Amino acid sequence: MKILVINGPNINFLGIREPGIYGEDSYESLKNTLKNKADELHVEIDIFQSNHEGEIIDRLQKAYADKVDGIVINPGGLTHTSVSLHDAIASVAPIPVIEVHISNVAAREDFRHVSLTAPACKGQIAGLGIQGYIYALEELAR
Amino acid sequence: MKILVINGPNINFLGIREPGIYGEDSYESLKNTLKNKADELHVEIDIFQSNHEGEIIDRLQKAYADKVDGIVINPGGLTHTSVSLHDAIASVAPIPVIEVHISNVAAREDFRHVSLTAPACKGQIAGLGIQGYIYALEELAR
Amino acid sequence: MKILVINGPNINFLGIREPGIYGEDSYESLKNTLKNKADELHVEIDIFQSNHEGEIIDRLQKAYADKVDGIVINPGGLTHTSVSLHDAIASVAPIPVIEVHISNVAAREDFRHVSLTAPACKGQIAGLGIQGYIYALEELAR
Amino acid sequence: MKILVINGPNINFLGIREPGIYGEDSYESLKNTLKNKADELHVEIDIFQSNHEGEIIDRLQKAYADKVDGIVINPGGLTHTSVSLHDAIASVAPIPVIEVHISNVAAREDFRHVSLTAPACKGQIAGLGIQGYIYALEELAR
Amino acid sequence: MKILVINGPNINFLGIREPGIYGEDSYESLKNTLKNKADELHVEIDIFQSNHEGEIIDRLQKAYADKVDGIVINPGGLTHTSVSLHDAIASVAPIPVIEVHISNVAAREDFRHVSLTAPACKGQIAGLGIQGYIYALEELAR
Amino acid sequence: MKILVINGPNINFLGIREPGIYGEDSYESLKNTLKNKADELHVEIDIFQSNHEGEIIDRLQKAYADKVDGIVINPGGLTHTSVSLHDAIASVAPIPVIEVHISNVAAREDFRHVSLTAPACKGQIAGLGIQGYIYALEELAR
Amino acid sequence: MKILVINGPNINFLGIREPGIYGEDSYESLKNTLKNKADELHVEIDIFQSNHEGEIIDRLQKAYADKVDGIVINPGGLTHTSVSLHDAIASVAPIPVIEVHISNVAAREDFRHVSLTAPACKGQIAGLGIQGYIYALEELAR
Amino acid sequence: MKILVINGPNINFLGIREPGIYGEDSYESLKNTLKNKADELHVEIDIFQSNHEGEIIDRLQKAYADKVDGIVINPGGLTHTSVSLHDAIASVAPIPVIEVHISNVAAREDFRHVSLTAPACKGQIAGLGIQGYIYALEELAR
Amino acid sequence: MKILVINGPNINFLGIREPGIYGEDSYESLKNTLKNKADELHVEIDIFQSNHEGEIIDRLQKAYADKVDGIVINPGGLTHTSVSLHDAIASVAPIPVIEVHISNVAAREDFRHVSLTAPACKGQIAGLGIQGYIYALEELAR
Amino acid sequence: MKILVINGPNINFLGIREPGIYGEDSYESLKNTLKNKADELHVEIDIFQSNHEGEIIDRLQKAYADKVDGIVINPGGLTHTSVSLHDAIASVAPIPVIEVHISNVAAREDFRHVSLTAPACKGQIAGLGIQGYIYALEELAR
Amino acid sequence: MKILVINGPNINFLGIREPGIYGEDSYESLKNTLKNKADELHVEIDIFQSNHEGEIIDRLQKAYADKVDGIVINPGGLTHTSVSLHDAIASVAPIPVIEVHISNVAAREDFRHVSLTAPACKGQIAGLGIQGYIYALEELAR
Amino acid sequence: MKILVINGPNINFLGIREPGIYGEDSYESLKNTLKNKADELHVEIDIFQSNHEGEIIDRLQKAYADKVDGIVINPGGLTHTSVSLHDAIASVAPIPVIEVHISNVAAREDFRHVSLTAPACKGQIAGLGIQGYIYALEELAR
Repeated sequence: MKILVINGPNINFLGIREPGIYGEDSYESLKNTLKNKADELHVEIDIFQSNHEGEIIDRLQKAYADKVDGIVINPGGLTHTSVSLHDAIASVAPIPVIEVHISNVAAREDFRHVSLTAPACKGQIAGLGIQGYIYALEELAR
Repeated sequence: MKILVINGPNINFLGIREPGIYGEDSYESLKNTLKNKADELHVEIDIFQSNHEGEIIDRLQKAYADKVDGIVINPGGLTHTSVSLHDAIASVAPIPVIEVHISNVAAREDFRHVSLTAPACKGQIAGLGIQGYIYALEELAR
Repeated sequence: MKILVINGPNINFLGIREPGIYGEDSYESLKNTLKNKADELHVEIDIFQSNHEGEIIDRLQKAYADKVDGIVINPGGLTHTSVSLHDAIASVAPIPVIEVHISNVAAREDFRHVSLTAPACKGQIAGLGIQGYIYALEELAR
Repeated sequence: MKILVINGPNINFLGIREPGIYGEDSYESLKNTLKNKADELHVEIDIFQSNHEGEIIDRLQKAYADKVDGIVINPGGLTHTSVSLHDAIASVAPIPVIEVHISNVAAREDFRHVSLTAPACKGQIAGLGIQGYIYALEELAR
Repeated sequence: MKILVINGPNINFLGIREPGIYGEDSYESLKNTLKNKADELHVEIDIFQSNHEGEIIDRLQKAYADKVDGIVINPGGLTHTSVSLHDAIASVAPIPVIEVHISNVAAREDFRHVSLTAPACKGQIAGLGIQGYIYALEELAR
Repeated sequence: MKILVINGPNINFLGIREPGIYGEDSYESLKNTLKNKADELHVEIDIFQSNHEGEIIDRLQKAYADKVDGIVINPGGLTHTSVSLHDAIASVAPIPVIEVHISNVAAREDFRHVSLTAPACKGQIAGLGIQGYIYALEELAR
Repeated sequence: MKILVINGPNINFLGIREPGIYGEDSYESLKNTLKNKADELHVEIDIFQSNHEGEIIDRLQKAYADKVDGIVINPGGLTHTSVSLHDAIASVAPIPVIEVHISNVAAREDFRHVSLTAPACKGQIAGLGIQGYIYALEELAR
Repeated sequence: MKILVINGPNINFLGIREPGIYGEDSYESLKNTLKNKADELHVEIDIFQSNHEGEIIDRLQKAYADKVDGIVINPGGLTHTSVSLHDAIASVAPIPVIEVHISNVAAREDFRHVSLTAPACKGQIAGLGIQGYIYALEELAR
Repeated sequence: MKILVINGPNINFLGIREPGIYGEDSYESLKNTLKNKADELHVEIDIFQSNHEGEIIDRLQKAYADKVDGIVINPGGLTHTSVSLHDAIASVAPIPVIEVHISNVAAREDFRHVSLTAPACKGQIAGLGIQGYIYALEELAR
Repeated sequence: MKILVINGPNINFLGIREPGIYGEDSYESLKNTLKNKADELHVEIDIFQSNHEGEIIDRLQKAYADKVDGIVINPGGLTHTSVSLHDAIASVAPIPVIEVHISNVAAREDFRHVSLTAPACKGQIAGLGIQGYIYALEELAR
Repeated sequence: MKILVINGPNINFLGIREPGIYGEDSYESLKNTLKNKADELHVEIDIFQSNHEGEIIDRLQKAYADKVDGIVINPGGLTHTSVSLHDAIASVAPIPVIEVHISNVAAREDFRHVSLTAPACKGQIAGLGIQGYIYALEELAR
Repeated sequence: MKILVINGPNINFLGIREPGIYGEDSYESLKNTLKNKADELHVEIDIFQSNHEGEIIDRLQKAYADKVDGIVINPGGLTHTSVSLHDAIASVAPIPVIEVHISNVAAREDFRHVSLTAPACKGQIAGLGIQGYIYALEELAR
């Protein structure tokens, strides 16, 4: 079983960016946590981060070709602006995609509330920190 | 450790109500699943359902008096309309509250997108079916 | 054949509340009129009024268990605010529900125009006074 | 007693137009049903259909001159766009006008929800199919 | 010098329609007043009324062919809904068009405030009753 | 002279709930303050709190039957969501009702600004803490 | 008979300000035109210009004390922003007030369309240049 | 193969109306171009123009009876205002309808952007001048 | 102790302006009532009225220099339009400011609902007539 | 003559992505169809696809340097979100650009209706499938 | 070379008003800084502050008469509310006007974002504190 | 001291793109002007342009690693659409960032008014042409 984790713009600045909101764990530690969990679940994991909308869409399309079994995505700021990313998720429709946000986006300012990508996903986990990724992995591994 | 699970209006019609959206498991089976999980996690669980906004607020206030350690809430239709429920969750603030939705509310019609209660919660899990409750329990038990 | 008539908040103040808009007939006379009509139509009628959203939802769910054949509902002020009531009507979907308003809600101020409950109903009758209930009964009895 | 029934644009395509929404009865059968009901109620009936806003307004004005006792109107698509039709109904104000829709307009897409004509009418019946016209006739005949 | 006066839907019901708002003078007396004024100003006048958007546009196009020198228009309810009428006025652009309203439309309910036709006109006179037409005639005759 | 004080959802958590906004006085001390003031004003006082919209409406209707002389209401979160409560206040219209808010609702986030209940009340006092109730009592006692 | 003409902010820059929109006549020539017309109509005229909202309101209140018979007002930019000016016009209600605009405000950009002052006036004349004032004077002199 | 071309209000003023936007070709030359193209494609063509919404709907309904094979429509100003025209196009659903605009409507002012009729059509061609009709003919002839 | 009372535009027309809404007491009697109350409370009072936004801001700034202990303000129409007044109140922040409205502004038309000044004030009293000023004085004197 | 065809995000998943909406032809077959048509028209064609907004803008700028004669663009999801793409099209203004959509975007959900790029283009073709590209090529080749 | 600096409402409270946002420099020190800079640039400077919209417009008009060479304006709260000030700036159009804000208005609450005056200005500088005025002076002096 | 200048999409087309709005200086001359100024200020400068949102975010993150002292950014069309860019600027928060626009964006069409990036910046300079960059450099060098 192959699972792809996609992190969008600025997620690689975890621990640097507004630690009061996103926590103090670094992006490296997020990756390690995910790899350990993947080992525990006996799934193959591929973790990808990009600040480029286009690269993320390319990666989603490659996942389709590679017959990935599930995708965890934290689209970062693209959550609220990218119709193309929504379309890309819908394009690879047989693959289940779970959207994860580290912070509780609903408690933040207005334009961040609406997720353009969520309607194309299976579901969303928000506000549970790095642990949100773990639950998404578990869900896909089930 | 004591955890309270609150289900709002119409959640007791699980398996009856629009099974294409909410799944075919009955509300009884949801309760059993949660009790089994609680046993596994060695936490005390109390599952409460009501179609009454007022009873849910009463129950939240009682949880404060009872020193409950965490709350899982699926506010049903009140998610989109109840400022009072938002206020009640904020009132019991030291207790972490996780909002759960069985279906992917973001993929549904417009007035359902906005959650009035989510800003007062720690986080949200949506679209993962009954399993969403399980992850919320696990998160509170951590 | 069993028909349930549900009257929402403040409908029991008929004849007291703004008689220029709602007419001068009392709630008792509304009930009598409906019972007489039910006798005439040879249908069993149950008339229920509550100022509590929760009790109305409970009553709708009970109607499902009781295998009621049709429901007439005047949701009063809940028409414009209750997503939970909309969900409850949708939950008991095989039972036809007709929404009735005594006054012409379309001729009144803005926030009253939109009915959140109507999309889940079979149809609506508004502005025909108490007679609106009669036509709804006739329609269900057909 | 004279009653005028006005059907707006596309109502004459009943049975042809989206039969899943509007039913399979033809416009001819609607007219026959109304005439039979009028006979039963001992009222004189005049049934008029036009795809022209202007002709419908002309007809409403003629009804004023002819001292018609009541009007049933299904404005079709003009419901949502015609201020002039609203004004025409208001202009013949002593004549009671009841607005009828065959389908449950509230359950359809957004721009159709608001009726510009309803505020000038006595009331509205929607979603009860052809039977909605019958109740409107009965109401005017009372 | 030739001036065309166009009255839109329901203006012919002057004196009948809501006399509290539109005054008690009949449409006949409006026509006489305008003819007398035209004589006084030594201009040829043609007064046209229709409840049909299409006929009004036809009449505007004919005025272009007839080399009319100026147009006074009271579009009635079409003021707020007819893009086609706006386009027709813009199409005959070399002819000055003045929009007249008998009542003070700005003091009435919301959807009536915006005039779709006014941007294509030279100017507007509202709220001065029948006298508004007289000033428009004088202006065109200057 | 009989005065009824109604406190809506979460007001009973005074002193517990966000004390930075609502102050540190407990709900018990609010009740004592009001009773002392009532004694001073020689009026009979009845203080009622509920988290249930329906119970508050029931209580308003009972006040009508009991011929209460004035009502002070702090509708809590229902202020912004309850058309039914607005209707109930309007239904008991001969009784003057004053709306009180402990905090300055106008200085808080958007959806809280609009009061659906205020238009049915005689007036509003906001932001003066518990003292706002005192002024309302004084006003009704005058 | 005494008539007051009030010109709001920037009207005194007539001929200087955007002459393509407002014409090339100077403010002096506007005043002379109005005085000549007033002589012709045998009415006493007082022409007042101010860039200060407050001075205009003061002047309206003075007009009430002076028993002025009619007021012509071109509120300039205050048209779109001044609730206080609306209130002042409503305060002197027995005096008829006619709002005049030199250009066709309806043909200009969005925020200029809505007049806050017009609902308190008897009527409006727009787009007829300086001549609009003349028609307003004539109307008040009738 | 029979194709109907419908031109809405003001299209017959082609070459007269704002030639900077709509080009300098006359309506006659548009008709000739279309007839020549139809000959070339060996299809029977019928070109219809009306300023009347009602006549256009009548013509669409007649096309249904006449078993026309395809329709090209330029609804003019009705594009943005006519729900009835949308409904008429939907009513004749088995016939493919292509909407054509001579100018690039998307580059023009706001209320013109939204087409109420397009959702009922197969597709749209805009901004390609008279040539847009040719492509529509070709498409229907395929 | 020094208290400043500021009345905005048109408040000096009390008793003249729409007495059905604002009562029949004159502005002189309001001033006398306030002076008497101030004497009773042993506070120094200064009552200021202006129709000029700028003068009111000047007066607020002077109050800061004069070390006034509290301010009662009825901003009149500026309530709904003056960001500058909001800023001025916020600028003198250590001085408590209470906003008073004579009528129940919440029960009036739309644009009046929102107070731009209230967020900078301590609280608001509305709908209690002249007595609202008295409670504000009492509150500041406490 | 050189023509550039640009396909935006996800267009390369043609035949894979929601074939019910976009048809079953693969992206390869689209390219072949376009090349054949270009041969037939004796124009040089360059077909470019990218999921990256930036690459598409780079390509547009290169086209300017290369003196391309015309551009066909299907911006995919960027249609609705990319001001930068709009600006890039406007930047290469002497080159005519035609926007093509395979499906009838007007018939789809709300946020997709508005094209940010269309105002900078010459025109738009939508809903005609792959054939839309052919008409765009023909138009540019004319 | 003559430059006029205009400061709107509350700018004279610099150093007093919310120093966390506007800095701790007093208005006197702002004036001194500007005079020193003007000396350095060898330009004549006139610094004007008023809390009155009308006085600011008067001053702008006087600048036109005085043939001032450039204007720096910080309109304070009028930025967001004054159409009249916008019009006044447009009226003196040959004089370049630069709008300055001390704080980063874009980072503050919603109604402050939109500047009504900026479209009439040459440009805007915001968020650079007092230094923003210096850059504006330098720009005008160039 | 190291300063980074970032130019977003299409800025490299300076002098080519709409020279009436953006001026006739080429992008090369902008770079030279900036380099000369940097020499004059004795600061190290790095000028970067990209049409790719992702590359700009990468560059901002690199600047954080490189301990750049200040950033000047002209985000071009991304100003209005990129939440990710806003987040990236906020992520490198200790580095001051000044947003520059060559033209007066406030004077242009609607969707361009709102800057999503400005709230994360220290300030904004708009409408001063290339000189705006110079002031930004000076400000960062101070």
